[in-house]
Amino acid sequence: MTAAAPPPLPRIEDIQAAHERIGPYIHRTPVLTSALLDAACGGSLFFKSEHLQKAGAFKARGAANAVALLPEQDAARGVCTHSSGNHGAALALAAARRGIPAHVVMPDNAPAVKRAAVAAYGATIVPCEGTLTAREAMLDEVVQRTGACVVHPYDDERVIAGQGTVALELLAQTEDLEVVAIPVGGGGLLGGMALALKTLRPGIRVLGVEPAGADDAFRSFGLGERLPQTSPDTIADGLRAGLGVRNFALIQQHVDAIVTVSEEAIIAAMKLLMSRMKQVVEPSGAVPYAGVLEHGEWFRGRRAAIVISGGNVDLDRLPWY
Amino acid sequence: MTAAAPPPLPRIEDIQAAHERIGPYIHRTPVLTSALLDAACGGSLFFKSEHLQKAGAFKARGAANAVALLPEQDAARGVCTHSSGNHGAALALAAARRGIPAHVVMPDNAPAVKRAAVAAYGATIVPCEGTLTAREAMLDEVVQRTGACVVHPYDDERVIAGQGTVALELLAQTEDLEVVAIPVGGGGLLGGMALALKTLRPGIRVLGVEPAGADDAFRSFGLGERLPQTSPDTIADGLRAGLGVRNFALIQQHVDAIVTVSEEAIIAAMKLLMSRMKQVVEPSGAVPYAGVLEHGEWFRGRRAAIVISGGNVDLDRLPWY
Repeated sequence: MTAAAPPPLPRIEDIQAAHERIGPYIHRTPVLTSALLDAACGGSLFFKSEHLQKAGAFKARGAANAVALLPEQDAARGVCTHSSGNHGAALALAAARRGIPAHVVMPDNAPAVKRAAVAAYGATIVPCEGTLTAREAMLDEVVQRTGACVVHPYDDERVIAGQGTVALELLAQTEDLEVVAIPVGGGGLLGGMALALKTLRPGIRVLGVEPAGADDAFRSFGLGERLPQTSPDTIADGLRAGLGVRNFALIQQHVDAIVTVSEEAIIAAMKLLMSRMKQVVEPSGAVPYAGVLEHGEWFRGRRAAIVISGGNVDLDRLPWY
Repeated sequence: MTAAAPPPLPRIEDIQAAHERIGPYIHRTPVLTSALLDAACGGSLFFKSEHLQKAGAFKARGAANAVALLPEQDAARGVCTHSSGNHGAALALAAARRGIPAHVVMPDNAPAVKRAAVAAYGATIVPCEGTLTAREAMLDEVVQRTGACVVHPYDDERVIAGQGTVALELLAQTEDLEVVAIPVGGGGLLGGMALALKTLRPGIRVLGVEPAGADDAFRSFGLGERLPQTSPDTIADGLRAGLGVRNFALIQQHVDAIVTVSEEAIIAAMKLLMSRMKQVVEPSGAVPYAGVLEHGEWFRGRRAAIVISGGNVDLDRLPWY
């Protein structure tokens, strides 16, 4: 029995080209530090702040790269995707910039704030049920009806290459990093960043951090085989997706370890980032700092980057109320 | 009938000297921008971000300056003040740095988060009732008992000079400003910044912004006579104090106008700064942006700095819950 040949993976050159290509369309986000949070963990933390990215999350990068790479005749038919939120908003923004239509299939359980963002950028929202099957079926229907090009939220070379640009910026902004902690859901950010980090700085330890309530990446990485995500149960709504094929291949090649964090730690991390650093971070974006709280041994005495992936949280429904 | 001679006021040289003196002890806070908030008001806004200052507010500046200026024999007896929060924490921090005791008289209605900060920096908290009379009486008692030097939260030349350093940084960071909007409570920040701004860039329009529920500065400025603050009623806990003598004199000399804002606008401003800029801002710190929401004519088509004065808000008691 032989496994099917894997789809082509992005290379470091694709990430470098994406970096040039999307530069005019995205923010070079700052790296923030906090003496208080350093003292609390006994390490030196560098918070790469993608919650300050356009549309409030790193997803702006992958979507910008994918839309920019579309040939003119394909682009004219528009783009479509299914997304619980940030990728949908990012794709809507990129499509609006290029002047083409966007259709976003959104599950009923997507946060209202993310739904509002997609609508604000002028995309058409196509509602569906929350299961992956329902999302994919509805997306097929949209493609049949409109001919729009699918831009998958993470299992897409162009998207992964775009997300990997976070690593290029981080390396240019921060010296002598020893550890980089990155959230993992579908694996676009972790896969792309790990490829770039390990290619350019092989000595850096790359750590994926995942909610224990949606731990398919943790289990798949340990087993060496991609397992499906079954009934994810976490407030980190951006990390409920299952690992993509390309993403898992990159993670197997380039990631050193994956750890999981509890819901309590995710909420505590959100609150600490808000109260100590004055930064509004969504649950998924707080997951790597939750890793600092629950896996301190990775950070004590080290220079570590913590990737805050996004800040689109519904302020009327903060999880501690 | 002749008025009593006013106490000596700080001069621009005092602010410049304070800038040198406190440089090692404070953060040079960033100036943040937002394309979304610019589009919403039709102007160009530059958010001077003192919520990212040490101890979470501009108060770190004045306290650092006052403590640094104490002669050795006075400093040895310690410092004391009454404060609803941010000045207390700032003084506690400055005292801890110099290795001297600090006593902070705090009213019962001070936010828990601010009380915790004062305690965390190692100061002794002396509880009292919420009225100004009770606060002053308790402070007198502390002075009698300990011999500590009083550092008033705002009606103090050294403190005003320290707060004025925000303006020196802002002018170095942002070109061609036409308007600067500054919150006003006791008047330390507004008085100090207005002195610096008008001395160094007379063409800049300096606007004080005050909660309508604590509008003694607005009324005093209009009348040309310092009125007492009577029963302040606002969620902006940092702006409930009445104008100081020195502060009013500086404001009369250097401020162009004072406008008031509603509680609804303060809450809306907090929420917009959190949802759009991902910045955690306390109610007092959101007051100048509330000014943008309710007095748009000052900002439309202009380059305007908005001073976010602090970010110490109790996340368990956000005002929209």
